[in-house]
Amino acid sequence: MTTAVSPLAPACFPEMPEVEGVRVATAAAGIRYAGRTDVLLALFEPGTTVAGVFTQSKCPSAPVEWCRARLKSGRAGALVVNSGNANAFTGKSGRAATKLTAEVAAKAAGCRPEDVYLASTGVIGEPLDARKFDTVMDTMAAGAECGRWNDVASAIMTTDTFPKGAAAVVRLGSTPVTICGVAKGAGMIAPDMATMLAFVFTDAPISARVLQSLLSHSVVDSFNAVTIDGDTSTSDTLLAFATGTSAARGAPKITRVADPRLASFRKGFDAVLGNLAEQVARDGEGARKLVEVIVEGAKSKRSARRIALSIANSPLVKTAIAGEDANWGRVVMAVGKAGEPADRDRLSIWFGGIRVAHKGERDPSYNEAAVSAVMQKPEISLKVGLGLGHGRDRVLTCDLTKEYVAINGDYRS
Amino acid sequence: MTTAVSPLAPACFPEMPEVEGVRVATAAAGIRYAGRTDVLLALFEPGTTVAGVFTQSKCPSAPVEWCRARLKSGRAGALVVNSGNANAFTGKSGRAATKLTAEVAAKAAGCRPEDVYLASTGVIGEPLDARKFDTVMDTMAAGAECGRWNDVASAIMTTDTFPKGAAAVVRLGSTPVTICGVAKGAGMIAPDMATMLAFVFTDAPISARVLQSLLSHSVVDSFNAVTIDGDTSTSDTLLAFATGTSAARGAPKITRVADPRLASFRKGFDAVLGNLAEQVARDGEGARKLVEVIVEGAKSKRSARRIALSIANSPLVKTAIAGEDANWGRVVMAVGKAGEPADRDRLSIWFGGIRVAHKGERDPSYNEAAVSAVMQKPEISLKVGLGLGHGRDRVLTCDLTKEYVAINGDYRS
Repeated sequence: MTTAVSPLAPACFPEMPEVEGVRVATAAAGIRYAGRTDVLLALFEPGTTVAGVFTQSKCPSAPVEWCRARLKSGRAGALVVNSGNANAFTGKSGRAATKLTAEVAAKAAGCRPEDVYLASTGVIGEPLDARKFDTVMDTMAAGAECGRWNDVASAIMTTDTFPKGAAAVVRLGSTPVTICGVAKGAGMIAPDMATMLAFVFTDAPISARVLQSLLSHSVVDSFNAVTIDGDTSTSDTLLAFATGTSAARGAPKITRVADPRLASFRKGFDAVLGNLAEQVARDGEGARKLVEVIVEGAKSKRSARRIALSIANSPLVKTAIAGEDANWGRVVMAVGKAGEPADRDRLSIWFGGIRVAHKGERDPSYNEAAVSAVMQKPEISLKVGLGLGHGRDRVLTCDLTKEYVAINGDYRS
Repeated sequence: MTTAVSPLAPACFPEMPEVEGVRVATAAAGIRYAGRTDVLLALFEPGTTVAGVFTQSKCPSAPVEWCRARLKSGRAGALVVNSGNANAFTGKSGRAATKLTAEVAAKAAGCRPEDVYLASTGVIGEPLDARKFDTVMDTMAAGAECGRWNDVASAIMTTDTFPKGAAAVVRLGSTPVTICGVAKGAGMIAPDMATMLAFVFTDAPISARVLQSLLSHSVVDSFNAVTIDGDTSTSDTLLAFATGTSAARGAPKITRVADPRLASFRKGFDAVLGNLAEQVARDGEGARKLVEVIVEGAKSKRSARRIALSIANSPLVKTAIAGEDANWGRVVMAVGKAGEPADRDRLSIWFGGIRVAHKGERDPSYNEAAVSAVMQKPEISLKVGLGLGHGRDRVLTCDLTKEYVAINGDYRS
């Protein structure tokens, strides 16, 4: 298994401001790993609102079911995240573990168990011993502080090769508010599956309903536009928390989605989610290339998305990119299998801005050397023009390397 | 690139009888390969009927479009197959090449160009120089003979590691008739895509309409139940030819699908297609394990098929099997992402007949050593019980190995 940092990682963890009303602590509870933190506790000021988006899996993990049920209140007191055990496919004991974790955290945080949100990532099918949290929770609550985002992002990693954070400071009305997010991506530990977890925190006073609308909208072109291998975790969780503490500094309370004062916030929120999603792609298992797939000229955005995902999930396209091969034939294949309207004789394909195929044939001015130079770069843009309509979309993915197979095919010892 | 024969290959090419009314010849036309045959010509007795099933790709190759248009007549005089160049994504020149090939073959075969069927596999996006066929076609037609199925299966290979043939002798009425089939599977030559081609020949006197019905039915649980990597070629072609010559020996002419005299033929036909499809899975790129995925207890067969394909196409399931890891957690993941009805707490999973998970939890009697022994075998059965209904289906696949990535990620030199 690789332990080297992805060559596509950002140079360093970003500077991230504190979010008023959010205090965090991390601890090493020994869930699975030795010598590292594996639990995150976040405490929220009373009045914090919450929104969430979860895996579409028909077999979700116990924490996902817990959060879905809690979300109806729109209220959050605390968040507990652990790495090392996903508490997925653990039956009744899984439900008992979520309940116990929430109770332990509620006691330490001084809130109701129903206001505790949970996320777990790591090995699945193994019972999660929630009593381990009992020994660390009080200390964590007592020592919780603002900021420390690098610690937060690190505690939720499994085999991510770098911690992922992003932040924005925007104005709500005339008051500056902060938006900070952390995520973990497709790290993998045998015999586990990858899980995407992301948490976004803001001090903006935004109602739960509005926050949910922002989140559901923003996820479409951020996390839902990223694919590593087309496999969907049973635990994918994205939660947003708004403490509202900036109201004391004059920020307006937002209770309507259409409120024009949201414009700047919305932009910052989208940027934070988009940034985190890109970092997930940059840390795809075994990734050596970040690949942006753009589809234009489709019948609709939805059609463009489906074709883009068909390309981004194609093992043959992904292995070709790993081999630095501008194999547009495989792109045609992936367009063709998507099942969406496409006309072979109108197709054009670009790699890194160089048109390699035009109107269903190899571009007459195709220059192997120029294309080859583009394919050797760590970031590759692959564009398909369908020539049918105005639908456009973009997804991010990475290449499929032997390292991916090695990471995920390691013998279960 | 590997040249070793797949460890999952049959011990030897099967004994296959002649099919009356079918004469074949192969030649080395130098399309792309050196030192091997790359063209197949099959000549059919007048009165031969034909049926076909093709790729679902929205961007099919020129030969696929040619065959689809010809099929309406239900009549066949000759078949020309070449390996080395797929004549796909070649625009107008591709259409010209199919027309020229058909004309050259028709002249040599003494039939109309409209009765010539074409299939090509190999590099795509490169113009196919059909004039190369001109130099070999007359000699091939003059030397065409019955039988020689191993030669036939070998001429259509790209990087398949073994030729694939299957045969059955069944009774139509009281007359013995033969069914012989050949296929090529997911061999790959950089920078090409895999293509599945299969051709089935019989001397049974079966109308084109009935033959099409048999073929469309039989493909559902044979070729359409095999997946290597979920990628769909633009050139997939399955053609069946019925010469009808056994009528002279007393075989009844079949013009109705419901004719009870078809029972035995139907069985043999299904067996030949099923056998060929399994051989395709056995020769999946880089394959080291043949994997049978069975889904039971689904709401319907259609639902079971979708779940089985979700499992069979999951990179995480396939890499786990490559690693001989009975990673049922990833199977749950693949069930969950299929989008079909599933209840986590009713799921049971078996590897090689050993139940590893039951009712949403690890099987209490789970025995790591026994499961580990099963996973080391070259053929692995993976069964999922959903506990919801009576829908059942089965698909075949192979594991995902570093070799797959190597074969498909080789630098385009």
